[in-house]
Amino acid sequence: MGDTREEIPVSTWQSIVSQKIALQKSAIAPFLTSDLERSKIEAITEISDIEVLAGKLSTGEFSAGNVVGAYIQKAVEAHQKTNCLTEVLFTEAVQVAQELDAYYKANGKVVGPLHGIPITLKDQFNVKGVDTTLGYVGRAFAPAADDAVVVQILKKLGAVVIAKSNLPQSIMWCETENPLWGLTVNPRDPDFTPGGSTGGEGALLALHGSIVGWGTDIGGSIRIPSHMNGLYGLKPSSARFPYHGTPVSTEGQEHVPSAIGPMTRSLSSMTTITKAVIDSEPWMLDPRVSPIPWRESVYEEIQSRPLVIGIMMDDGVVKVHPPIERVLNELAEKLKKAGHELVPWEPTLHQECIEIMDKYYTADGGEDIRRAVQSGGEPFIPHVENLINKGQPISVYEYWQLNKQKIAAQKQYLDKWNSMKGPVSGRVVDVLLTPTMPHPAVPHKGCRWVGYTKIWNVLDYTALSFPAGSVSLEDDPLPETRYQPRSELDAWNWKFYDPKSMNGHPIGLQIVGRRFEEEKVLGAARIIEEVSRGA
Amino acid sequence: MGDTREEIPVSTWQSIVSQKIALQKSAIAPFLTSDLERSKIEAITEISDIEVLAGKLSTGEFSAGNVVGAYIQKAVEAHQKTNCLTEVLFTEAVQVAQELDAYYKANGKVVGPLHGIPITLKDQFNVKGVDTTLGYVGRAFAPAADDAVVVQILKKLGAVVIAKSNLPQSIMWCETENPLWGLTVNPRDPDFTPGGSTGGEGALLALHGSIVGWGTDIGGSIRIPSHMNGLYGLKPSSARFPYHGTPVSTEGQEHVPSAIGPMTRSLSSMTTITKAVIDSEPWMLDPRVSPIPWRESVYEEIQSRPLVIGIMMDDGVVKVHPPIERVLNELAEKLKKAGHELVPWEPTLHQECIEIMDKYYTADGGEDIRRAVQSGGEPFIPHVENLINKGQPISVYEYWQLNKQKIAAQKQYLDKWNSMKGPVSGRVVDVLLTPTMPHPAVPHKGCRWVGYTKIWNVLDYTALSFPAGSVSLEDDPLPETRYQPRSELDAWNWKFYDPKSMNGHPIGLQIVGRRFEEEKVLGAARIIEEVSRGA
Repeated sequence: MGDTREEIPVSTWQSIVSQKIALQKSAIAPFLTSDLERSKIEAITEISDIEVLAGKLSTGEFSAGNVVGAYIQKAVEAHQKTNCLTEVLFTEAVQVAQELDAYYKANGKVVGPLHGIPITLKDQFNVKGVDTTLGYVGRAFAPAADDAVVVQILKKLGAVVIAKSNLPQSIMWCETENPLWGLTVNPRDPDFTPGGSTGGEGALLALHGSIVGWGTDIGGSIRIPSHMNGLYGLKPSSARFPYHGTPVSTEGQEHVPSAIGPMTRSLSSMTTITKAVIDSEPWMLDPRVSPIPWRESVYEEIQSRPLVIGIMMDDGVVKVHPPIERVLNELAEKLKKAGHELVPWEPTLHQECIEIMDKYYTADGGEDIRRAVQSGGEPFIPHVENLINKGQPISVYEYWQLNKQKIAAQKQYLDKWNSMKGPVSGRVVDVLLTPTMPHPAVPHKGCRWVGYTKIWNVLDYTALSFPAGSVSLEDDPLPETRYQPRSELDAWNWKFYDPKSMNGHPIGLQIVGRRFEEEKVLGAARIIEEVSRGA
Repeated sequence: MGDTREEIPVSTWQSIVSQKIALQKSAIAPFLTSDLERSKIEAITEISDIEVLAGKLSTGEFSAGNVVGAYIQKAVEAHQKTNCLTEVLFTEAVQVAQELDAYYKANGKVVGPLHGIPITLKDQFNVKGVDTTLGYVGRAFAPAADDAVVVQILKKLGAVVIAKSNLPQSIMWCETENPLWGLTVNPRDPDFTPGGSTGGEGALLALHGSIVGWGTDIGGSIRIPSHMNGLYGLKPSSARFPYHGTPVSTEGQEHVPSAIGPMTRSLSSMTTITKAVIDSEPWMLDPRVSPIPWRESVYEEIQSRPLVIGIMMDDGVVKVHPPIERVLNELAEKLKKAGHELVPWEPTLHQECIEIMDKYYTADGGEDIRRAVQSGGEPFIPHVENLINKGQPISVYEYWQLNKQKIAAQKQYLDKWNSMKGPVSGRVVDVLLTPTMPHPAVPHKGCRWVGYTKIWNVLDYTALSFPAGSVSLEDDPLPETRYQPRSELDAWNWKFYDPKSMNGHPIGLQIVGRRFEEEKVLGAARIIEEVSRGA
């Protein structure tokens, strides 16, 4: 008989990829064209406010079938342009939409506040019967047994899942590529990244292929693609929304917790979806969620008076590109004129916090990610390979010491915040305004420094990235005096600045509040956006 | 010169103990007698309700000096009887009381709602300038730089710290002994344990040497001494009260979190002190606290209608002693008669949860506790030595897998709870009524099984132990049919039952709610206590 090993049919990782991509293609195939008129598709998908779209569904002006059909068409086009989708659920979505329309016809009312609203999910949220790949080949053909808790909640409110979207291998990177689903590109320039790790959602939403996308954020993964694609992205405190049923890399590491959060095309959508999930009492379904109801009074109060806003332009490590500096300066000036108090904010404690959190990512010596990649047999993407080879595993005892350091740093930062007061009112700073990234979208493999976002993960604070402006070839020339970078990292970032290729690319800024201050941040965002858009 | 090592004076652990005990004696010495009349001391210390005592302080009927003086006298007597104190702060307390009286005289009002209320603390809470020993010799002569957050809050409200109290070496035991401060005994019988780990508070409160004591609970350490001493002990969800500034064994291990909580002599005291701390917004001082205000509406609602009460008599591992079964049965009968709905509760998932949590205690292979003991050089107490030699350390990767198991178990238990409904109302179970321990106080070294309490730590649920009855030689004879124990552990427990020596010893029961349901548990406790005391 000789050596029989060769005779056993082996599924190489490439053959699994081929099968998955073939299935994806066949799921898309029936939807390459649509029976809906183009004007109808545009009329539906140009609406960015969930509550406006929901209103039209509740009056019967739009049917769920048409709304879902229009979004599917846009999602197909977005995918063709950017390779943003992973699991395609169009057929299932059309079926659900038909059921919703039947219910509406029979009962003369909607099933819930999100009746017929299409949603999309980073390929990390469990949807019953569908793979949750996290960009790993080894997770292909292992369908989830149940919906993630947030998916259960959204479905119950009437939302329709139309697709899942791409992310980097292991999710631990701020761009979007993996050997299973490939590379997702920026809608404005295929040579540029859409950011990550929730990059598939970023591209999809930017192209109006979704109205609400759900991502996860352990270092900036919701906020970074929101910033690069002109979107709103909320990273709440981790115990505000239900994480249950959302597998993640280094799962079980909860001291620098990943949080789920929505990405939207308008601020009102963001507030609507946040409130809808919280109003559903997710703590009854996920034991990790804190039972904090939506606090309308906090949301209203912050909009009723001058704000005290901390301004942090520079984290002291990597200086932001000129258009980001300009956008933040212009906004600060407007806020001041509108009567709000500004307080300069130094990045004290940021370095210490980031040093602590970086140790968490690799406390297992990369074992979690290494196992996941090796179970599929595909190659590592370079960033992930670097990450998991950064250091040796530490002991549980050392891990506990690290956690003590983290808690001490969190306490110091809270004391710092409480000490920062408006010069006129004497009131403690309400929110902090700060860049999301030190650069707009950059060419693939250009992202490195996520210190502006990840500091809020180790503190578990609330952070919203919102579109605050865009790069302008005219307004944002390279400075005449050559900038002297502070470090290799700073030089790396600076070398990417190019007002020509970046012209028109969106710029997001973050509004940051302390732990569980989602209502405050969303209320402040209304005021800040009003001021930003005015005069 | 020869070998010089012998010439260096060495502090042996015994010499440190001698110094600490000598200092303790000299701190007590001036207070061995009191100028206060005995009747005055009794009149003050027989008041168990904080709000009643606070009322008399606010009207000027009692001075802070007298109240603090009376409690000091009782604390001295309690210590002489049970060896319950560690750090003695009588001189400082008298000084603070004088300042409070001066303030009252000058301003005609109290400084806050706890003006002049004496409090005591397990020797685990930092008090500025005083050691926090945790029962370790190696922590002697290392005074805390700041007050614990909860101490800051209580002092600000007007409370006066009079002493700290004893606990077992490492706190990881349900009795109270360590080589530094010695053994604390049960006020009713010196051959019996007062329970632990907050055993010093248990003895002190039982003898009216305090009106509010603060403990910590990672497996039952507040509830067990409360049960054995006829007290109320609340283990809230861990993120409800501020832990900051409270060193603990295996600190940094937060997946089975220790919680701080009060111990009191009345239910109204318990509610008053809980509300007072929460109303102080501890989340502004401790980043781990969830910003959940005191929810009066929840506290009221639960008192306005028939309750749905789960009843778990037996955890399936260790059967409770006859008087505990009798007390729970009698109470259940009364509750039923009063119109409340009872739902039998099986210990499903308890074993799995406890197996998971036991792995956390020793995930570091005992390194944390071993280091702490070795730094002082004292011997291990047998229980602690057994604990730390239970197993090898696990890796961080394995630790993360353990945490995933824990979260899955928490989710299963929450789903179980949500499925338990009252047969008449169809309403989900409000609270669970269950024993605190399988036995009343037992002879020293008799405590072993804490499964009735620790299950609520791994779930991070709210659990209140309250005094529900006592052993009665007449009512609780040994069963005529000899009980056949299920296991060695069950046999160990059963052999301690002795209605003669236990006669009159208190019996506590637990009222358990889900995470963050402190208001619900305290409100239900009012109703249950009312029913228990009636007819």
